[in-house]
Amino acid sequence: MSDVFDVIVIGAGPAGENVVDRVTRGGLTAAIVERELAGGECAYWACVPSKALLRPMEIVAEAGRLPGLRTEPIDVQAVLARRDETVSNYDDSGQIRWIESVNGTAVRGRGRVAGPRQVEVVDGEGGRRLLTARQAVVLATGSTAAIPPVPGLAEARPWTNRESTGVKDVPERLVVLGGGVVACEMSQALYALGAKQTTMIVRGDRLLGRVEPFASDMVTESLRDYGIDIRFGTEIVNVSRPVPGGEVTVDLSDGTRLVADEILVAAGRRLASYDIGLASIGLPEEGPVKVDDSMRATAVEDGWLYAVGDVNGRNILTHMGKYQARLCGDVIVARATGGKDDLPSMRDRADHIGAPQVIFTDPNVCAVGRPEERARREGFNVRTVEYDLGRVTGAYLQGDGYKGRAKAVVDEDRRVLLGVTFVGPGVAELLHAATIAVVSEVPLDDLWHAVPTFPTVSEIWLRLLEEYGL
Amino acid sequence: MSDVFDVIVIGAGPAGENVVDRVTRGGLTAAIVERELAGGECAYWACVPSKALLRPMEIVAEAGRLPGLRTEPIDVQAVLARRDETVSNYDDSGQIRWIESVNGTAVRGRGRVAGPRQVEVVDGEGGRRLLTARQAVVLATGSTAAIPPVPGLAEARPWTNRESTGVKDVPERLVVLGGGVVACEMSQALYALGAKQTTMIVRGDRLLGRVEPFASDMVTESLRDYGIDIRFGTEIVNVSRPVPGGEVTVDLSDGTRLVADEILVAAGRRLASYDIGLASIGLPEEGPVKVDDSMRATAVEDGWLYAVGDVNGRNILTHMGKYQARLCGDVIVARATGGKDDLPSMRDRADHIGAPQVIFTDPNVCAVGRPEERARREGFNVRTVEYDLGRVTGAYLQGDGYKGRAKAVVDEDRRVLLGVTFVGPGVAELLHAATIAVVSEVPLDDLWHAVPTFPTVSEIWLRLLEEYGL
Repeated sequence: MSDVFDVIVIGAGPAGENVVDRVTRGGLTAAIVERELAGGECAYWACVPSKALLRPMEIVAEAGRLPGLRTEPIDVQAVLARRDETVSNYDDSGQIRWIESVNGTAVRGRGRVAGPRQVEVVDGEGGRRLLTARQAVVLATGSTAAIPPVPGLAEARPWTNRESTGVKDVPERLVVLGGGVVACEMSQALYALGAKQTTMIVRGDRLLGRVEPFASDMVTESLRDYGIDIRFGTEIVNVSRPVPGGEVTVDLSDGTRLVADEILVAAGRRLASYDIGLASIGLPEEGPVKVDDSMRATAVEDGWLYAVGDVNGRNILTHMGKYQARLCGDVIVARATGGKDDLPSMRDRADHIGAPQVIFTDPNVCAVGRPEERARREGFNVRTVEYDLGRVTGAYLQGDGYKGRAKAVVDEDRRVLLGVTFVGPGVAELLHAATIAVVSEVPLDDLWHAVPTFPTVSEIWLRLLEEYGL
Repeated sequence: MSDVFDVIVIGAGPAGENVVDRVTRGGLTAAIVERELAGGECAYWACVPSKALLRPMEIVAEAGRLPGLRTEPIDVQAVLARRDETVSNYDDSGQIRWIESVNGTAVRGRGRVAGPRQVEVVDGEGGRRLLTARQAVVLATGSTAAIPPVPGLAEARPWTNRESTGVKDVPERLVVLGGGVVACEMSQALYALGAKQTTMIVRGDRLLGRVEPFASDMVTESLRDYGIDIRFGTEIVNVSRPVPGGEVTVDLSDGTRLVADEILVAAGRRLASYDIGLASIGLPEEGPVKVDDSMRATAVEDGWLYAVGDVNGRNILTHMGKYQARLCGDVIVARATGGKDDLPSMRDRADHIGAPQVIFTDPNVCAVGRPEERARREGFNVRTVEYDLGRVTGAYLQGDGYKGRAKAVVDEDRRVLLGVTFVGPGVAELLHAATIAVVSEVPLDDLWHAVPTFPTVSEIWLRLLEEYGL
């Protein structure tokens, strides 16, 4: 096997794999280096298994709102078995086959930049191999769970997204550190599967700090209604776990002490720019690898280095990494073959506008574009409209006690949407309409003719436009 | 109470009510005449109760695909009680209050056009009242179930959408005449609630004749998998029911005879242009009341007559009637007050493009715009792409054996979508994204930057665009 490739990708998560897909389709050769499982964090330890664990809870909730329908208690072992299936039993041979099917070369080992266009790979047995890229090296190393420097926390070997999505025995007493997406989703999923004493420790005064405040409030209310204990304005000051895997004692800043069977740390992500050899080319080994809108690293001479996905710091979201990867791959092909490298499809538009995100809690939180506060900060002439989703007939027909809310942020000068947020049960699939409207800046007067079908929940679009005055 | 109003609306279904809402908001006075229940067919005997009956089936199917989750048998009486609640127990006092709340005047009785700007109302006791409109009369009389002239059918007093959505005792043996939306939805709903011997008699060779053929095929397969007997290319030649409410004997064109507890006729709609006095102004008393894109009847002098909803023959869909009503109401206000009456919001665009529709069977069928065959017939330079929805991760995460399919019809000359069809479980809320894209003619190259969120079913958008070659 040659050690020279047109493109070398470090990290075979969804972003890295999409780079390989696009550059090989463009006729280039590509190697992709992975130190763990090809498929990446998302496929084994994040988005996929967490959704497999959340789905039963969602259906139970939906059935619970519908008179005449009852669910039997969840068979936890069957849910975990299905979870194992969704993560291919933590076996990446299907992914390796996929990489080969698109004519990529999968290389197992830890990849590090070793100089311009050079990547050194160290495999599990310590073997070293030097790969050389004719055209480009692409960093797609993702991120890892950040562990805050709380005394005793690291020593307690806490759960992160990995162990919690891979749960085998659901702890009855669970302490969760954090209030972001992983903390909310996994608290609720594990609660539904048996963690009946779950306590969330949140430093700030709200969950989900980046969404509209009403969305935070609705998730807080729902988690509390489920029975989850949320403590805002609190920090963990000490952790002790004398017996590995045994009881954990957690001391809080307010003086109280919690005893739990497990502790889950969901306190943000550390970008995986460390330990990948960036010092060898004069780049910092912490923080994002800064890129331009073609995903090319801005601080590297000759433009041979690119970064896609979490590690470039734009958005820690699988679909945005894949999006960046598609355009990055196309750009590399264009530059390698002398083609046009500045087509509209080859520049990142979506990350700047406000990436779409779905949080799969009950209720779902979906948002795209700019929340009101950001839109005002950026100087837009903002007007907002809100509407109670439960008043939409399509939502009411889903069951009793449907609670939801929608908010649109309008740019009054151009009469286009800057941001949209939906909160409610099962609203995940409503978001893409908003993503199209926000990204393509469809005028409100055109949206008026896009008639939502009765009786779907999507009639919220009509209500928002009516509230606006159309 | 004065008998002179700016606007008189005949028919207080969703379309008529929306006219009142818009014209009273514009400062005009309005009366709305209703011979049955204010709220109309949709609220009591169609969209709303049918969805209330279909929803439990949908949840049972969703749970059934998910290992670890089981539902108890449906409590049919509880489902029917919930249905009764969704139709306000067939009481329209809430609707009457709503009409009054927007300063409309509700008039009970049968309204008939009695000459230019004149409407005669005959109430239940035979009392007559003549209303006069200063500005406009709006027909919003809807449609009724068509009963084909089969010997013995009318005498057997068959069920229509009304009796089937209002079911109190679910018949075990059911014969359904028709293969359209009502036939498919109600066959499946009633089957799930206990009509275990359901036979559909379909004259043509497919169900749901207006959607893409693959959608028809998937619904056929699903209904048959449920256990419904579908007979294509068959007609009913004779019906006999010697005892009212007793057994029905149905003779088919192929010589076989069926015996059932009930027969449901779902063989199309008759537009309610009959028995509303149209002869008095020289219009035909059958078929659509033809209108221009401002909803004004084209065959009436002085332009005082409008028609919205089913009766104008554009689309027999609640949401399209409401859409027409909004623009019609605005136009009437503009014309009455000397305002601009040709704003973009005052002309029907959506009906011509291909109205969005969701069929709430399992699988859901959603479509907007032009199916391939129509797009080709209309002379577009068409290319189509299709994709298996079950291969989208977000669909797979919903459960085992998810089956679905999507198809996009592209105008190659302009690189915009002419039509989109989704078929699959729970895809109803995916449609509005397509409606926006089709109605606003968002270029494919813009849709490429509208990143669908992982892992939602909406990632089908990415797959379709990739299949297209982006």
